[in-house]
Parts: sequence; structure tokens; C-alpha cells
Amino acid sequence: MKAADRAHVFHSWSAQGLIDPLPIAGAEGSYFWDYDGNRYLDFSSQLVNTNIGHQHPKVVAAIQEQAAKLCTIAPGFAVDVRSEAARLVAERTPGDLDKIFFTNGGAEAVENAVRMARLHTGRAKVLSAYRSYHGATATAINLTGDPRRWPSDTASSGVVHFWGPFLYRSAFHAETEQQECERALAHLEQTIAFEGPQSIAAIILETVPGTAGIMVPPPGYLAGVREICDRHGIVFILDEVMAGFGRTGAWFAADHFGVTPDLLTFAKGVNSGYVPLGGVAISAEIAATFDQRPYPGGLTYSGHPLACASAVATMNAMAEERIVENAADIGERVIGPALREIAERHPSVGEVRGMGVFWALDLVRNKETREPLVPYNASGAANAPMAEFAAACKRGGIWPFVNMNRTHVVPACTITEAEAKEGLAALDEALAAADAHTV
Amino acid sequence: MKAADRAHVFHSWSAQGLIDPLPIAGAEGSYFWDYDGNRYLDFSSQLVNTNIGHQHPKVVAAIQEQAAKLCTIAPGFAVDVRSEAARLVAERTPGDLDKIFFTNGGAEAVENAVRMARLHTGRAKVLSAYRSYHGATATAINLTGDPRRWPSDTASSGVVHFWGPFLYRSAFHAETEQQECERALAHLEQTIAFEGPQSIAAIILETVPGTAGIMVPPPGYLAGVREICDRHGIVFILDEVMAGFGRTGAWFAADHFGVTPDLLTFAKGVNSGYVPLGGVAISAEIAATFDQRPYPGGLTYSGHPLACASAVATMNAMAEERIVENAADIGERVIGPALREIAERHPSVGEVRGMGVFWALDLVRNKETREPLVPYNASGAANAPMAEFAAACKRGGIWPFVNMNRTHVVPACTITEAEAKEGLAALDEALAAADAHTV
Repeated sequence: MKAADRAHVFHSWSAQGLIDPLPIAGAEGSYFWDYDGNRYLDFSSQLVNTNIGHQHPKVVAAIQEQAAKLCTIAPGFAVDVRSEAARLVAERTPGDLDKIFFTNGGAEAVENAVRMARLHTGRAKVLSAYRSYHGATATAINLTGDPRRWPSDTASSGVVHFWGPFLYRSAFHAETEQQECERALAHLEQTIAFEGPQSIAAIILETVPGTAGIMVPPPGYLAGVREICDRHGIVFILDEVMAGFGRTGAWFAADHFGVTPDLLTFAKGVNSGYVPLGGVAISAEIAATFDQRPYPGGLTYSGHPLACASAVATMNAMAEERIVENAADIGERVIGPALREIAERHPSVGEVRGMGVFWALDLVRNKETREPLVPYNASGAANAPMAEFAAACKRGGIWPFVNMNRTHVVPACTITEAEAKEGLAALDEALAAADAHTV
Repeated sequence: MKAADRAHVFHSWSAQGLIDPLPIAGAEGSYFWDYDGNRYLDFSSQLVNTNIGHQHPKVVAAIQEQAAKLCTIAPGFAVDVRSEAARLVAERTPGDLDKIFFTNGGAEAVENAVRMARLHTGRAKVLSAYRSYHGATATAINLTGDPRRWPSDTASSGVVHFWGPFLYRSAFHAETEQQECERALAHLEQTIAFEGPQSIAAIILETVPGTAGIMVPPPGYLAGVREICDRHGIVFILDEVMAGFGRTGAWFAADHFGVTPDLLTFAKGVNSGYVPLGGVAISAEIAATFDQRPYPGGLTYSGHPLACASAVATMNAMAEERIVENAADIGERVIGPALREIAERHPSVGEVRGMGVFWALDLVRNKETREPLVPYNASGAANAPMAEFAAACKRGGIWPFVNMNRTHVVPACTITEAEAKEGLAALDEALAAADAHTV
């Protein structure tokens, strides 16, 4: 299997000659394991998508039943599981986001949300944040605010990047959350004024930026962006591909802030990625734009029956088993306090941020200077401190989610208190490898 | 279900207020049916993707077994079914296209192929054909050569469109296949000369253009394009999303022409769309570009285990049951001759084109003038002749694939002779509705 992998599988985001993919034998709940008897507590939820854990029996059964009934049918038809999946998503999304356009994943959801915004407004530019990730198709990667954009960036994409709020590494020299919020909103207002409000179709934000560092926005920021969008006729898109479906301890991260966007993109947690699925939830006003005029977008597998069946089972199981509530409870009662206690004891932990099962440790060389443990976009020797830390995690039996100078604690929403404590103890030990690089 | 569909499902390529999606109850083999007892012979293979027919028992079983074992795992790991799917695709692709990058569908495959070509060459422009479809994400829709591109088109996409060979509606005033081939190649050479060969990263072509009209290229055309690409250091991308995996009566349409591209995109038939899956097959030379340098693209569900398991079962079943051979045989022995005979009797059938289970009838108002039965991109009243023809097909028990002034005969590769004859008889009758509009 490994030989065939190296001979024939071209892996994402990798130098193909420099990788050594671990062969996986199986997975269940909060764990997965290899063929050598090594079992890992999954503190990454893979790519932060298995919110319901691995191999949830109700979702597995739903896939098996739908496979026996109807694997696929074209998007032009009506199908029971497609209708029901759309109804259940719409029931959970905030406000009047009641029409669902299904895609195969998050990048396509973002592509279509931007297309809808541009056609709805008749404007071209889209504003997005530095420190963001929105996907890897052309529009989505241009919106992205991390170095993965650079090789595919086109100056002519119509995308303008601005700075979001992030007090720990404030772009605005702020000293309080309130100041950071006010200054970030003023910065956005100024950017819009100088770009020309009448040329801006949309502002897209991850409700809580994910891979870029889990920066929970300060109170008032998202409401402020909503007000700015309303004032200028700009479509407000919230990207909840990573933050949605329980990750923050709510169905959607937007629920914490009482804000309703015009378009909301989702994927990952909607069915924990058991079958590829994503989508856009659309406001009544934007849906009406495409009531008599054809929406010029589509894909062969839009509303795929197998994917929709797994989403229906996932959303129902999450409700029945109070899985979103578990994520909120474990986050507030177990993970948050433990991480803050860990931060006090480890010189390498500069800040702890997060909510639900969505946490980041910002690792630093020095707590006073806040210098990142490794430079921005480091690789090779420059990245050794993070590589050593990640190896220590794996030796300790947890699979970490590591990005730049951060490790994220993003287990399944189903994680138990005992599992969380087991993983946090292993993380605590592994941080010695990071501490060794502090000055 | 229907109420929930209208309330919550936003459908592809449609004015949401003007559609009435047919609710589907089930499907098997060459047929699907609604809740009112109407059964349709699927002459569309949905969106030309269910090459193995509906609900093939071996593929259904493979999905059920893989669901029980491991639904999903991140792209960074090695997994048995991912390795095996890649090996089986590589075994079938021509030449040295031996590394497989998996995506969720065709659009993402095209996005990634273009990214690879641009980074491999260091050049920006991509040439594609009018009369083509490549997907609906930003790069893919800009490459597309049909009206679906227009609302999302950006002049700054780096795409340049040219004309491919199509003798029946020749852009070059040619009178023979050989003349059409020579003139189409000369046109491409001239376009390259005036765009600047050193600025062109890639030429992308559907091996046999699909939705745009199933124009089988004349002998020598693709070999000519290959030679032009080699001479100018341009990457040659063949898009086999629709034409691949048995559709033309070969594993890949390229097999008919003895041509190996540098990159080959696939989706649909690889697993008949039972689970969303697509990908790019990569030449050794282009793969080597990303051996020591990271490939800057990826997606959460790249090499999705459930999708890969269904692809393995599909490719194995197609080999065991000689399904590709069946498509070739039925096309040559049954469908082709029957359609040519139908064309002789119906004044509305201007031309019959195709191979395997991949056929088009070009419908005309008049055989002499070749005026299309409906104008290019017609809608509403102007499209009535085609709408009436499609309705007649459905009344006759076949589900047609209709696009512009054409109907495509694109059943499953598994179709039996008896089924094909049943469908062709229904088509024969339905064409009276088209004949009524001839002059």
C-alpha cells in the first residue's frame, strides 16, 4: 500500500519527494491508528472536519442505507434526502438563510458565494482578511490570507485584503479588546472608503478564523461589520466551513455574536466529511435575485444523495446526542481551564485562545517580546522547534494540528472529559520540546 | 419532499422560481423512476456520469464495506483504497501519467491542472476552445467556451479562446475532414504566434468535446496539437471528465488517437459519481517539478476513502464485466447505425456524430442551410422546438440530454442491445416534434 502510495498518489500541499505518509489502518470516535499498533488521540479532527468523531454508527448506517437505495442523481431532480438535508441546514442557520446551494466542499462554496454576491450587487471587488483560509480554487485561494495564496495569486483577482482584529498581535497597536474592535472597524471603514464602496461586492470573513489562528473576534466586531455592509450595500459573507456545525460549541459561530450574514458557507462539520459536501446558505433577498434569472453556476454532484443522507444523519445525531452542547461544555469546563493552566507553566505558550473544541496555543520564543517560536512561513531548519514539538505530541499519543508557530486543540465535538484530559496531559508533556527553544 | 425542495434547495444553473424538479423515487441499471409510476430509460446518464449504470451492486457493496471500515481520513495519510484507486487510474491512463492528484470533481481537477501547468512553465496564459465546458469554479468557468461562462467571465483571467475542428459547422470554411484538421491546426499555430508562445502555459481541450456537441476530432488533430505543444514548451491538458472511463468505448478517449497529454483531468465515470470524485493524472516530468518544491494546492477531501473505494470497485467491475467493450460494441453495432438511419428519415436531423455511448444529433430547421433548430443560447419561446422535443422524449419513456439545438444519446456503458433499441425507437418517435419545426 505504501509503495503504491509513493508511486501513484500525489498529496496536497506537499513536496512529493520529501513526505512519508503514515499508513492508517482504522479509526473510531476520538482515535485513529496505524498498522504498527500506534493509536493516536485525534486532536486535529483530521483537517478539523470530523466533528462527530470517527465512524459514528448512525452516520455509517445512513450511508449504507442510502447506498443501497440511490447513490447519485442529477442536481435537477428533487430527492428526499436532498430536501431534508437542505431543510435541516436551513433550520440551523441564523436569520433568513433558508435556501441551500450544495457543493462538494468549502472551496466551491466560497466560489459560489462570491459569484452570487457579484451578480447580486453588480460589483466586482471582494474584501477578505489577512490571516484567513478560504480554499484552493482560483477565487478561494485569492481570497485566502496566508502564504498558500502566493503561488496562485493574481493581482487581477478583484480581491483586497485588510486586517481583522487580533489583540495579541494587534495591527492597530491596541491594548484592550474594545480598542482593538474600534480600531479594526475604523481600519475596515477607511479601506472601503479608499477602495470605493460602490465597487465592493462583498466582505468575506471566517466568523472565527480557523487555520490562521482561531482568533475569536471581540464583542461588537462582527455586528460592526454587518452595520458597515448594510450602510454600503455590500454583501456580508461568513465562512463557517471550519467554525460551523458545533466546532465553537454552537451550531454556527455566528450564533455567539448574534449576527446574520447574507451568505454563509459551510462544509466539513455538516457531515464530518464522511462524504464530500459543502454549501452556501442564502438569504431571502439574494435568493430572490435568482428567482426569475438563472443562477449561472452548478456542478454534477450538487446535492449528492449519499452526501445529503450522511448530513441528515449527522445533524440528527448531533441533536439527539447533544453533541454541540458537549463541545461547549468540554471547552468551557475542561479544555479552556486546562490550557490556561498549561500556559502559566510553559514559557513557550504566549497565548491561549478559543471556545468549544476550537483552541489555539500561540507559541513564542519569549513571552515578553511575543516573538513567534518560528518565523512566519518557516520551513526546514527554521521550523525545527515546531517539528520537534509535533514529533513529541505523536510520541505521546496525540495527533496535533500544527500551523506556523501554533498548535490547535481541535478534537471531535464528541470528545469525553476523560479523553480530553488524557490528550491535554500528553500536550503538557510535549510542550517541553517547545519550551527548550525559548529564550 | 417537494415542498421542502422548493423551500430550501437552490438548484444549479436555474431560475429558482421557474423550475419544477421531478421527484425521483429510485434507479437501477439503465432506468430511473418517479413516485407516479413513470419509469425512464436514462439516455442522459444523469449529467453523463453514471457510466456503470445506476446502483451497480458491486459498487454499492464497496461503498457499504468502506463506510463500515473508514469513511474519511486526511489527505496527508496513506490509505489502502487511496493507493489502490491511484494505481488503477494510473494503470489505465496513457503514457507516463502515473501520479494521481484526487479532487472532489471535474472543476477542481481543471483548477489544479492549470495551476500545475502555470507553475511548471512559469507562464500565465491558457488556451481553450470555444464550444467546450470545463467546470464552474473561477478558472474552470473562464476556460469554458459556452454561454455559461459569460456571467462569471473576467477579461483578466489569462484565458484565450480559439476554435477547434468541427466540420459540420466549420470555422474555417473547410469541406473535408482533412482540410478541417489542417486549417484548425494552422489557426491554433497563428493564435499561439500572436499571443506569444513563451507566455502560454497550457492548451486545454476536451479530447472529444462533450456538452458542447460531441465533436470527434478528425484524424491527426490531437497529434498535431501535441506536436505544437512540444515545439513551444506548452503543457497539453486533455480534459476527460466526460469523455473518460468508457464513454467513447475506450478507457480514455485519448486512446483512440494515440496521444498522451501532460496532464489528464477526470471525474464522472471514474466511479460513476456514486461518491463525488475527480482528479488529475500527472506526467513524470510535471510530477518532478513538485518533488522537492511543495505543490501549492489541496483540499480536505483529496483522496477521500469512500470515494476511492467506489472508484476501485467501479474500475474493477468495468474490467471484469467488459463494460468498456460493451460501450464500444453497442455504439458501433447498434446506436451508430440506428442514428444514421434515423437521420435519413427525419428532416430535423442535420448530423449524427459520436462513438461508443457518446452521440449527438445536431437538429436543424433545414438540412440544406444547416440553420440550428433553435438559435444559439435560446430560451423561452425561442427555445420551444427543443422544449417540445424534450417533452416528447419524456412522454415516450426516455430521459434525454438536451443542449442548445442538440440531443445527445449518452446512456450507461452497460446498456444492453434491447434497451438501446427500445430507447432509439422512442427517440425516433419523439423527433416528430422537432420535424414539425423544419422549413
